[in-house]
Amino acid sequence: MEKSVVIGELAWPEYARRVKEQAQPILVPIGALEQHGPHMSMNPDVLLPGAIAVAVGRQIGALVAPAIAYGYKSQQKSGGGNHLCGTTSLDGHTLSLTVKDVLKEFARHGARKICLVNGHFENSMFAVEGVDLAIRELRWEGIHDFQVVMLSYWDFVTEETIARIYPDGFPGWAVEHGGVLETSLMLHLHPDLVDMSCVPAHGAASFEPYDVFPPIPEWTPSSGCLSSAADASAEKGALLFDVCVEGISRALREAYDARAKASHA
Amino acid sequence: MEKSVVIGELAWPEYARRVKEQAQPILVPIGALEQHGPHMSMNPDVLLPGAIAVAVGRQIGALVAPAIAYGYKSQQKSGGGNHLCGTTSLDGHTLSLTVKDVLKEFARHGARKICLVNGHFENSMFAVEGVDLAIRELRWEGIHDFQVVMLSYWDFVTEETIARIYPDGFPGWAVEHGGVLETSLMLHLHPDLVDMSCVPAHGAASFEPYDVFPPIPEWTPSSGCLSSAADASAEKGALLFDVCVEGISRALREAYDARAKASHA
Amino acid sequence: MEKSVVIGELAWPEYARRVKEQAQPILVPIGALEQHGPHMSMNPDVLLPGAIAVAVGRQIGALVAPAIAYGYKSQQKSGGGNHLCGTTSLDGHTLSLTVKDVLKEFARHGARKICLVNGHFENSMFAVEGVDLAIRELRWEGIHDFQVVMLSYWDFVTEETIARIYPDGFPGWAVEHGGVLETSLMLHLHPDLVDMSCVPAHGAASFEPYDVFPPIPEWTPSSGCLSSAADASAEKGALLFDVCVEGISRALREAYDARAKASHA
Amino acid sequence: MEKSVVIGELAWPEYARRVKEQAQPILVPIGALEQHGPHMSMNPDVLLPGAIAVAVGRQIGALVAPAIAYGYKSQQKSGGGNHLCGTTSLDGHTLSLTVKDVLKEFARHGARKICLVNGHFENSMFAVEGVDLAIRELRWEGIHDFQVVMLSYWDFVTEETIARIYPDGFPGWAVEHGGVLETSLMLHLHPDLVDMSCVPAHGAASFEPYDVFPPIPEWTPSSGCLSSAADASAEKGALLFDVCVEGISRALREAYDARAKASHA
Amino acid sequence: MEKSVVIGELAWPEYARRVKEQAQPILVPIGALEQHGPHMSMNPDVLLPGAIAVAVGRQIGALVAPAIAYGYKSQQKSGGGNHLCGTTSLDGHTLSLTVKDVLKEFARHGARKICLVNGHFENSMFAVEGVDLAIRELRWEGIHDFQVVMLSYWDFVTEETIARIYPDGFPGWAVEHGGVLETSLMLHLHPDLVDMSCVPAHGAASFEPYDVFPPIPEWTPSSGCLSSAADASAEKGALLFDVCVEGISRALREAYDARAKASHA
Amino acid sequence: MEKSVVIGELAWPEYARRVKEQAQPILVPIGALEQHGPHMSMNPDVLLPGAIAVAVGRQIGALVAPAIAYGYKSQQKSGGGNHLCGTTSLDGHTLSLTVKDVLKEFARHGARKICLVNGHFENSMFAVEGVDLAIRELRWEGIHDFQVVMLSYWDFVTEETIARIYPDGFPGWAVEHGGVLETSLMLHLHPDLVDMSCVPAHGAASFEPYDVFPPIPEWTPSSGCLSSAADASAEKGALLFDVCVEGISRALREAYDARAKASHA
Repeated sequence: MEKSVVIGELAWPEYARRVKEQAQPILVPIGALEQHGPHMSMNPDVLLPGAIAVAVGRQIGALVAPAIAYGYKSQQKSGGGNHLCGTTSLDGHTLSLTVKDVLKEFARHGARKICLVNGHFENSMFAVEGVDLAIRELRWEGIHDFQVVMLSYWDFVTEETIARIYPDGFPGWAVEHGGVLETSLMLHLHPDLVDMSCVPAHGAASFEPYDVFPPIPEWTPSSGCLSSAADASAEKGALLFDVCVEGISRALREAYDARAKASHA
Repeated sequence: MEKSVVIGELAWPEYARRVKEQAQPILVPIGALEQHGPHMSMNPDVLLPGAIAVAVGRQIGALVAPAIAYGYKSQQKSGGGNHLCGTTSLDGHTLSLTVKDVLKEFARHGARKICLVNGHFENSMFAVEGVDLAIRELRWEGIHDFQVVMLSYWDFVTEETIARIYPDGFPGWAVEHGGVLETSLMLHLHPDLVDMSCVPAHGAASFEPYDVFPPIPEWTPSSGCLSSAADASAEKGALLFDVCVEGISRALREAYDARAKASHA
Repeated sequence: MEKSVVIGELAWPEYARRVKEQAQPILVPIGALEQHGPHMSMNPDVLLPGAIAVAVGRQIGALVAPAIAYGYKSQQKSGGGNHLCGTTSLDGHTLSLTVKDVLKEFARHGARKICLVNGHFENSMFAVEGVDLAIRELRWEGIHDFQVVMLSYWDFVTEETIARIYPDGFPGWAVEHGGVLETSLMLHLHPDLVDMSCVPAHGAASFEPYDVFPPIPEWTPSSGCLSSAADASAEKGALLFDVCVEGISRALREAYDARAKASHA
Repeated sequence: MEKSVVIGELAWPEYARRVKEQAQPILVPIGALEQHGPHMSMNPDVLLPGAIAVAVGRQIGALVAPAIAYGYKSQQKSGGGNHLCGTTSLDGHTLSLTVKDVLKEFARHGARKICLVNGHFENSMFAVEGVDLAIRELRWEGIHDFQVVMLSYWDFVTEETIARIYPDGFPGWAVEHGGVLETSLMLHLHPDLVDMSCVPAHGAASFEPYDVFPPIPEWTPSSGCLSSAADASAEKGALLFDVCVEGISRALREAYDARAKASHA
Repeated sequence: MEKSVVIGELAWPEYARRVKEQAQPILVPIGALEQHGPHMSMNPDVLLPGAIAVAVGRQIGALVAPAIAYGYKSQQKSGGGNHLCGTTSLDGHTLSLTVKDVLKEFARHGARKICLVNGHFENSMFAVEGVDLAIRELRWEGIHDFQVVMLSYWDFVTEETIARIYPDGFPGWAVEHGGVLETSLMLHLHPDLVDMSCVPAHGAASFEPYDVFPPIPEWTPSSGCLSSAADASAEKGALLFDVCVEGISRALREAYDARAKASHA
Repeated sequence: MEKSVVIGELAWPEYARRVKEQAQPILVPIGALEQHGPHMSMNPDVLLPGAIAVAVGRQIGALVAPAIAYGYKSQQKSGGGNHLCGTTSLDGHTLSLTVKDVLKEFARHGARKICLVNGHFENSMFAVEGVDLAIRELRWEGIHDFQVVMLSYWDFVTEETIARIYPDGFPGWAVEHGGVLETSLMLHLHPDLVDMSCVPAHGAASFEPYDVFPPIPEWTPSSGCLSSAADASAEKGALLFDVCVEGISRALREAYDARAKASHA
């Protein structure tokens, strides 16, 4: 219990010691319950940032909060759309309030460095709003040194890694949903939650440069995936995992440091 | 993946089959991140209803949704108070909106039988409000047969079991926080998250018949527990677990049945 | 006008004097408009805490604010359910906001000691949330010494009194709705609003250890009462009234004192 | 109990009979807790519409709901301003939600004709918004024949009556606050809550054709009144009361009738 | 670009200079998209306060913010009602939040003197609420010298001007909607948006001293106007425009001055 | 007035005819008041989509609603950040509610085809949420054929055009803020609002793959631009304008058609 980086697994005196005495950052995974095709479970958006956060936490001495497990509504061009069965989403305001409330509590405990580790594209702006609202209200509490890093793990996949993962050309993160990235990571971390025999064979979805609401169901491949995970592998997953963990660990060290310098300047 | 009762571990076609064809109920654990004394991790309120929900799901053929991991503010007389370090809570409205949003999504998928399995006393009324708001909006969607059971697992501990667990007299659920019930269940399910050598020795807290805000910190034992878990054991935990799982399984069969009868009368 | 403890009956200069110079506490009754069976009016939840608050106000030198007359939704196991005709309730958030707004106004006037005197069980948690939100925003105003006592009057009925009121055994507050306690108090205070010839004869309702939504109407006795008031009497009402007034008066003196001590420690 | 027009004083079966069988309208007084000068209590805005509603209810066979006792923030040019001690107000959204919730509940009971009887000028638009929101949501419930009359009692004082009440010229409702109208009505209905020896002698306040926020305290007469009640009398109060009760009674008969005709046309 | 008083037309360094160095007030027009009869476009409520604000800005050295172009719901007795085609309105809370957000941003930039220039009667109270909320939250930010003037331009039309505009008697602002005032001003400022050949000939609407919801469509003249603009002219418009611009310019100088004096007293 | 495509410039009968008889789509520009560097006014995000919408409206026979002139908070990596002077933003929820309210009103008028023409990147997700909320509530009103296209105009700049506009390589839309695209369009449409002599000379900003809150001011170029507009020209602006207008016109024809086909399939 003492060694864990997972907040929920600590007794409060140990948590208090890490937050107050050691000023450890708190990483908050934020995901979704969302269909990811016929070949994969519906929890990658929460499992993947959760696993990455734990690995980062171990590297840099940070704590990992319970994941925010339900996310914002899936968009057709990035997640297939929120009309799909299984996808279970919050209104934007609910998500922003959740982020706000949780961050303010960590601040009350004494935490001053937070990182939202996002695993679901559509969360980004509502999480950002929650962060902004939390910082505003903390200012009203007299807390002016609360700092938040907001990131999505795939933004730390380097060009070099992309070239290795997608030797035949990178279709873009936009159509990654249920594709090679997520499936490889799941094969690496949770192979029991992937069934490669069910991977759809269709090519990458292509979309118009606009969105329509309600979505036109025919525009989403019937698999729910936006590209095929046929080329996914556990090895690619391990590579992706490592590059994300390394990149995020380095980024967090730099980010909190950059602010410290900026504040002291 | 196919055999799991955990929604997040299913691919969407299997989930769709269970919800639409088999009309399986969905159990939603609702917990908290809350200090539970120096001898125990801060996640029992989410782990315990989660484990009970999975066991019930296996017994009665129900699905288990991702837990709502952050709950309403701890109250001094039931959880020590929300001023304590580690306790991480949502505003009431945020929690109600979360419950509302999630339930409406399950209804959109076709689910009509829900059970909120609560593990944190203070959640109850805000979860109830979320349920009421969901049912109201679903009525506006034209859905009139959506039914929700709301329960807290400890209410299924029978008098007989209480007599066995507390041979020297039952102090009441009110001061159970971090006490024999929760600690025994954790010893049964997650012994690695309990350190019996740190159990506080103090007697049960006693409170005035009123609440004060902000809380007077001195009124909460400094351990954060409201009674001592010294008499907790894994055996008691197993007994409690079984009685809750049995009781809830039976209750759910009856409840959905009672409504069916009431509707047809 | 000068002698009244009722805020509404005072001209503002006298109110200002009492709040600012005398630092009198303000008692805010919070009730409901709710069916209470065929033998009683629908206003006991607001009349009873109102009358108790006035008596307490006279004893300890406190002011009584206008009652919050509409409360949170009646629950089946404590008030028969919110599907019943006559029961007229607010959404939880509306009630919390009302409490928040009113408390902040009293703080603006200079009041620092508040007591919410609750007469409707279901109000409790939403009133608590309103109190928490008010205290938070007052902190942002720079007010750090605002203190609120939250109580429900029946929690001041002593064991001894219960034994006298219910010589054949106490069925528990849970099924009191429209029963001996409330009816006796109304017979004592407002005999014209009770018609004992209409008291239902059925035994105490018994409920499952869970709630169902929407409620199954058949689970509530058709009278709307959860137990019979046949044994109610004005004498019992007088006894109950006195024990509540004494208990609350003593409690408030202690509570504000306890905080003063805690603050100075 | 059977004869009362006050909802709170009825047992639910009688209420149900009046609402469902007799289709009686429900009148909802909506007031404020607001300073009204040094010579008068702070509750006229709730007592006056309440008394008028009861008298109207008796004339036309309508029910009177519990008053909404806290209103919107006092404005400097109509009530002296919300910076004054004693004035206790709600945020606009809180008031709108309260009106919405209460109206929807009456609709659930079967009521279809509502009248908001306003006694506090500043309430008007937020009450109107609450009405609009209620009607919208009731439409979603499938209720399309819910009709609401919104009125402020002073708008029923006829030109002829004004000429009798203010023989030296009518200063306008704008500066009536704590003046002849309200004081006369209180002298008629609650003489114990008026102390004519404390009536301020100053002339009517005059204001710029704009508002400033925060208010400039010097712009409000230090009495809190916007004109002098020196000419108030119980006789004038009786006259005003009668003209309002007659006017509103007639108006309600016409209004519900007008809609019936419009609907059938 | 440098000479404009319109904020949107300035580059940020010039804006920053005017707000921070010159402490220029910011005027925020607030209007509506609302039918104004068959003879006039639907934008007078935003064009008129916008044009007046620009002229005032030039006179007194103030900036003009982008107009809030959608307003609160049209009321039957002042704008024909919100059931009419073309009228496009916000919920009250949305409007209040918009005003709050925008004002807080100007305060963040350094502005301390704001004027809301209202062109749509129904906006008033929701704009007032937005102002109050902004001032409250700015206090929490530590900003205590933020001052807002709230005005509707027609309140600056003098008695003398009214006598000249309405030689046959003034029907009152209440029925002005789509009438002589607005039409004359539009003829002066935007003659291309008026077609005098379509002016309805009917007399001024007359209404009961109460409102009904939903509105009874027959109570609004079918033109959507509440009085006839037959007597409108560009000359009257020029006169009205000048008197408003002069009056508001003078008022703003006085208002900000009055506060300065009050603060220093 | 009759020929305009601008809703605000139409009298209501003409608007009603176009919406109800001709079923014209309604285009709603949605922008921001945001600093765009020292060389350009702060209104391009509202002027550009507004001008594009009018041109598209003329091409395809659509109406243009008043722009939503204030947008969501500027983000550091796309707009420099919301800490900058001049940038004037709404909370996310406020923006979503505004979009929701306005869309529902157009639906009430009879419109069924809407297009949000976005000019400010950060608006996207909050506008999407407003659209989703509007469609949900319209469903509750019984309106099931309401369709919304959501687009940002720059997404219609073709690869070919990009190659012509940025002959030395396209830095990506991410750093376009205040750059060649926006400045060229403004030079084409509003040359008086651009001063090319003030264009900053710095290279494109580069950012980390994460965001920090509060922003570190040093990370934004002090000009407020994210890249240099030195290569902007009115000719490029004309080219960009035409390609956007053509692309959007074609897209809207296709989109409404696609849905029609999907619905009939």
